[in-house]
Amino acid sequence: MSLTQHWQEVGELAAGQHLSIPVYRFGDAASDGLHVYIQANVHGAEVQGNAVIFQLMKRFESMDINGSITLVPLANPLGINQKSGEFTLGRFDPITGVNWNREYVAPDFDMSTWFAAHAHLDDAELFAAFRQELITGCKRQLDNDWGVSTGTRLAAELQQMAHQADIVLDLHTGPKSAKHLYCPEYDLAAACYFSIPHTLVMPNEFAGAMDESAFYPWWQLSDIAAQHGRQIEVPVSAFTLELGNQERIDLIDAEIDAEGILAYLSHRHVIDDHVKPRKMRRNACALQDYKKLYAPMAGMVEYVAPLGKPIRAGQGLVNILRLDLYGTEQEIVEIKAPEDCVPVLHFASASVHLGTEMYKVMTNVFELSCDE
Amino acid sequence: MSLTQHWQEVGELAAGQHLSIPVYRFGDAASDGLHVYIQANVHGAEVQGNAVIFQLMKRFESMDINGSITLVPLANPLGINQKSGEFTLGRFDPITGVNWNREYVAPDFDMSTWFAAHAHLDDAELFAAFRQELITGCKRQLDNDWGVSTGTRLAAELQQMAHQADIVLDLHTGPKSAKHLYCPEYDLAAACYFSIPHTLVMPNEFAGAMDESAFYPWWQLSDIAAQHGRQIEVPVSAFTLELGNQERIDLIDAEIDAEGILAYLSHRHVIDDHVKPRKMRRNACALQDYKKLYAPMAGMVEYVAPLGKPIRAGQGLVNILRLDLYGTEQEIVEIKAPEDCVPVLHFASASVHLGTEMYKVMTNVFELSCDE
Amino acid sequence: MSLTQHWQEVGELAAGQHLSIPVYRFGDAASDGLHVYIQANVHGAEVQGNAVIFQLMKRFESMDINGSITLVPLANPLGINQKSGEFTLGRFDPITGVNWNREYVAPDFDMSTWFAAHAHLDDAELFAAFRQELITGCKRQLDNDWGVSTGTRLAAELQQMAHQADIVLDLHTGPKSAKHLYCPEYDLAAACYFSIPHTLVMPNEFAGAMDESAFYPWWQLSDIAAQHGRQIEVPVSAFTLELGNQERIDLIDAEIDAEGILAYLSHRHVIDDHVKPRKMRRNACALQDYKKLYAPMAGMVEYVAPLGKPIRAGQGLVNILRLDLYGTEQEIVEIKAPEDCVPVLHFASASVHLGTEMYKVMTNVFELSCDE
Amino acid sequence: MSLTQHWQEVGELAAGQHLSIPVYRFGDAASDGLHVYIQANVHGAEVQGNAVIFQLMKRFESMDINGSITLVPLANPLGINQKSGEFTLGRFDPITGVNWNREYVAPDFDMSTWFAAHAHLDDAELFAAFRQELITGCKRQLDNDWGVSTGTRLAAELQQMAHQADIVLDLHTGPKSAKHLYCPEYDLAAACYFSIPHTLVMPNEFAGAMDESAFYPWWQLSDIAAQHGRQIEVPVSAFTLELGNQERIDLIDAEIDAEGILAYLSHRHVIDDHVKPRKMRRNACALQDYKKLYAPMAGMVEYVAPLGKPIRAGQGLVNILRLDLYGTEQEIVEIKAPEDCVPVLHFASASVHLGTEMYKVMTNVFELSCDE
Repeated sequence: MSLTQHWQEVGELAAGQHLSIPVYRFGDAASDGLHVYIQANVHGAEVQGNAVIFQLMKRFESMDINGSITLVPLANPLGINQKSGEFTLGRFDPITGVNWNREYVAPDFDMSTWFAAHAHLDDAELFAAFRQELITGCKRQLDNDWGVSTGTRLAAELQQMAHQADIVLDLHTGPKSAKHLYCPEYDLAAACYFSIPHTLVMPNEFAGAMDESAFYPWWQLSDIAAQHGRQIEVPVSAFTLELGNQERIDLIDAEIDAEGILAYLSHRHVIDDHVKPRKMRRNACALQDYKKLYAPMAGMVEYVAPLGKPIRAGQGLVNILRLDLYGTEQEIVEIKAPEDCVPVLHFASASVHLGTEMYKVMTNVFELSCDE
Repeated sequence: MSLTQHWQEVGELAAGQHLSIPVYRFGDAASDGLHVYIQANVHGAEVQGNAVIFQLMKRFESMDINGSITLVPLANPLGINQKSGEFTLGRFDPITGVNWNREYVAPDFDMSTWFAAHAHLDDAELFAAFRQELITGCKRQLDNDWGVSTGTRLAAELQQMAHQADIVLDLHTGPKSAKHLYCPEYDLAAACYFSIPHTLVMPNEFAGAMDESAFYPWWQLSDIAAQHGRQIEVPVSAFTLELGNQERIDLIDAEIDAEGILAYLSHRHVIDDHVKPRKMRRNACALQDYKKLYAPMAGMVEYVAPLGKPIRAGQGLVNILRLDLYGTEQEIVEIKAPEDCVPVLHFASASVHLGTEMYKVMTNVFELSCDE
Repeated sequence: MSLTQHWQEVGELAAGQHLSIPVYRFGDAASDGLHVYIQANVHGAEVQGNAVIFQLMKRFESMDINGSITLVPLANPLGINQKSGEFTLGRFDPITGVNWNREYVAPDFDMSTWFAAHAHLDDAELFAAFRQELITGCKRQLDNDWGVSTGTRLAAELQQMAHQADIVLDLHTGPKSAKHLYCPEYDLAAACYFSIPHTLVMPNEFAGAMDESAFYPWWQLSDIAAQHGRQIEVPVSAFTLELGNQERIDLIDAEIDAEGILAYLSHRHVIDDHVKPRKMRRNACALQDYKKLYAPMAGMVEYVAPLGKPIRAGQGLVNILRLDLYGTEQEIVEIKAPEDCVPVLHFASASVHLGTEMYKVMTNVFELSCDE
Repeated sequence: MSLTQHWQEVGELAAGQHLSIPVYRFGDAASDGLHVYIQANVHGAEVQGNAVIFQLMKRFESMDINGSITLVPLANPLGINQKSGEFTLGRFDPITGVNWNREYVAPDFDMSTWFAAHAHLDDAELFAAFRQELITGCKRQLDNDWGVSTGTRLAAELQQMAHQADIVLDLHTGPKSAKHLYCPEYDLAAACYFSIPHTLVMPNEFAGAMDESAFYPWWQLSDIAAQHGRQIEVPVSAFTLELGNQERIDLIDAEIDAEGILAYLSHRHVIDDHVKPRKMRRNACALQDYKKLYAPMAGMVEYVAPLGKPIRAGQGLVNILRLDLYGTEQEIVEIKAPEDCVPVLHFASASVHLGTEMYKVMTNVFELSCDE
């Protein structure tokens, strides 16, 4: 499939350098078929999504696309370029502290009112009108006499592109992390296609993340329609893929995740090639059962629970080493899992203050049934 | 009045150092009279509140207190101690990016239900029960099998102390700033007492700040009671005082702000001494009319609009200097006020990215009538 | 005079953005007359030099130049663009900690040997050959099979341009600072021309700064020649101008410093216009008498000694406020000047750890005789 | 062996917290036998040395010590506690940028003069007098009317303790790193005892590091004596052990390195237990042959050369991925080793600016002959 490319301006640095991001497209955005939007590296240190986009593009070059696929690697140059010591300080705006992935916006209009005014439209018309309203809402963000914040501008530019798609994939990573997927509950079957063993099931809520900004309005619309007795299947799919560790580029592993994405696109008939999903056990839990373990004391941390493997309540998660307390009972303190759980990610650093988030773990885990 | 002091543990650093904060008290927390809570320096660079507490304590030593006054300077040692380059990086947790003044919590119970269950109590009993419920809610924050985040712990410890008070003052500063006051609408008359010329009038909403955490539950309770036909005056007063520039200690200026606080405490009969408020024009605007001006282009910034002085729509706020564009029309770009306004604070740095917040200004300003 | 401009590439950011800096030139680099090199903003927060360059360029446009003047504002885009919290973290490379103004290099060849081999040349030939050798040395820095560090690259590109000049001005600022000048001892008369009241007299040593990199080789050459009985006046002049506070753009004040630079260039006949130096008392001390005062205890700091005004031994420099020690003798500790001195700059933040540099002061101050 | 412990004050934080470090001692500092000093974690993120000290102390508890062993874990609390984002920003002082391991000092007296004045002493007397002079020099650092910088104070306190020892071990780590040893040339046989496969052979030079500060004065003294015809074996041994990756605690791996240190102490008869060194190939190169590879272009980095394994000139070290250049020859650029080498460590982040140090590699590698 032929590839087009353009640059999207998203910022300007104090010394005058323009920040623009490369936008690649396979297929025709005006064509029939589904439209796909894939972005990577909104958090500056979470670079592996770029490698996955690279491997995907290599594959798309020899494929037919039904619809279009838009790919935006290096989506947040300000985050990517911000170093602090040897690491990339790209999780939040260094000036404001705002997480770059909490700047997307929910509809700025009342969706119930809107639905009532457009209830006479058939599904296709309704969707087209709603989509247009969402895009217009993003444009309104950018049009303000008092200007627009750095993070709002970036988010609004990305979100506009995402709203034009039927399928939205936001490629992230954890700090030290097993691969996991954020998947809205209505779309849980999709989790069977990606090369990802752990799924967090998201409710119909909005907290500012890209995936939520893409699925939440449609899911709300579907709920509102249902209240009026009209059944609408949510027509947009949106997922966040967490592709292992941050600060890591691995081109071979990127092929595995590209394959998973292709399996999903194959399932959705975006590509004609038949790509089968990888066989693996896939576990899930509700987002509310995804627990954070905070350090109950400061110290040096040995992370002992392997990522992605179930452990029992009472098994050790970390050892906290306190050399200042050598010879006391606190020289090493083992922190145990309060419940049965699957550790999914842990903190990047091996020392913690009191209250630093050390692990995120799934509890009340169930297996997805992915029949083939 | 005699002074007692104790230490409140709020954290522990990776290398093992305990973080505790000094808590000073004049008077008896169990006595009749109003109880006052004053804290400073929750944002690490906003140090002037410590100087104001110092001057207040010097005054309280020779005063009688009706009730008690609890003073907590240096309230956030983790924020105060966190340097980045020559400055204190104390506005947000360096690990999470979360603003230290957005970690306080609203009641974790349904207030309408609670009111219905306690409607039979008289006002004094109702208030005592509600206060106890709020304090218990903070304690619940700290009691969690999975631990508590660094910021939650600090906030919950401070909020517990604040909930025991009738009057809560949170001492902050702006970056480069005229003095200004955050004042809830129901308590606007209080703005006539502090030595502060600019007041932002806050609605009955909660966004995580200390002042909101102190007044919001009571204001809500008052509204709920009103819905049930019972009139309750909101019994708790809470304000954020923004005492000029961050990264500044000025012991003389601290006397002026201490005097304003004493004038308010005198008005509330916490102290018997009659301290008159400073005569000054006091302006106000609604919080929603407090506008942020974001940089419409990157560059070096000359802040030309003086802080605290009204300017007209079309007058210059900043000049943006672009040496990379010398010889073009953009070598200097003047950014003008979109509306009549009073600039209250501006950004601390003289260079901005596209979208950096440059000024905060009051619009739709009105004068407070402070008859004496 | 006509102006030409080109871009000098100096770096590339992780997300792919090129970093280039604008290089402006009045006059002809190949012409007779003296050649001048002026750069600004090598430290990211020290922006005022850009405003001075702006005002200088406005003046040069209507002047005749004998020789050429090359101006490089925004000289370190990586430093300028690096924010940490609200401030610019531009004093050192955020990855390595290396001060951007300690990356310039001394000659990488033995100057005595070189002089012996070229002693037969007359002064003009000798200077031309030596200048060529210095420039070649910078190019060698950039030509390495193992690559070149970020800071070395920037420094080598800037230093190459500086070595082509007879007069080198590096525009900096202090944190909170009175204006002061770093001036090599052999060129002390030059200090009478700039609009700068305080001068630090530099010895014939090299520590990696731009001014040193420009004057040190020539001063060494002059000393080596003297050892061989040949008198050579050092043909290159190089100064660092510290133009007040960092994080400040003031276009009016920039005119004053531009005027001082013009007075010096007038004195050197680079411009025909007769610009007289500003009348002011000009004090100086040897660099070894420029003392740093380190905090003898941690705390909140009130800077009481005004910048640029002499104080006596025993007068207060700062008050350190310790709210955790209220009621003890250490609640406020006054730190006194150990000697008579002139405070030149102080730390940017109002809180210090034990050992933070609080003030830099001149001791053994003498007045420069600047007869007119 | 019995253990004593005391606290060494090394600093004080802005909010008033004292920074003290735990100092553990086995044996008697006044006894016959050799005296050993082991410190860890001077760079804040390099925590594994604490785990090694932990394992050593567990072993020493049941051993006899000939002389004494002083252990200082958590040696730099200011570095350990300084977070930036999720990582510890502990390589340099966040205020000044100065590397915490470049603050130690060389003798501040002329060693030749000193030797001449003390040449009449026998070796034991000479050593005792010199040792005392070194310790006194450290104390002088701390005694200054103008105060002492944060980093100087820490270094001088640690260096004083180190100067009292005959054997000094400074436990560090690389970013992502194979284990390696900095070993002075005169003491190369010692490299056969530690559990470390790579050795960098250090010359008789001083650049501010702890190991250098411990061996350099004695090596100089030995050289000066030799110039006077007197043979002195350098009586002090000092090494920096780089124990793998930063931000890692691994108690099992710590046992391996503890075993290596015990093997060395056994060889030196500090412990009577016979601990044999681990059998492994041990490679070395001169420090000047330890090369840094700087990024010749910016981008995302896949580190392909495994650490600790020899590669040939022309083999790939890294792939630089440039998604902004997809479809060009630069979409992936392989950076090849310019010479045969052994990669020892690589950068911690997977994205680099132009000029970021990507790898450090040994060239001109030779095998140490460690006969047993």
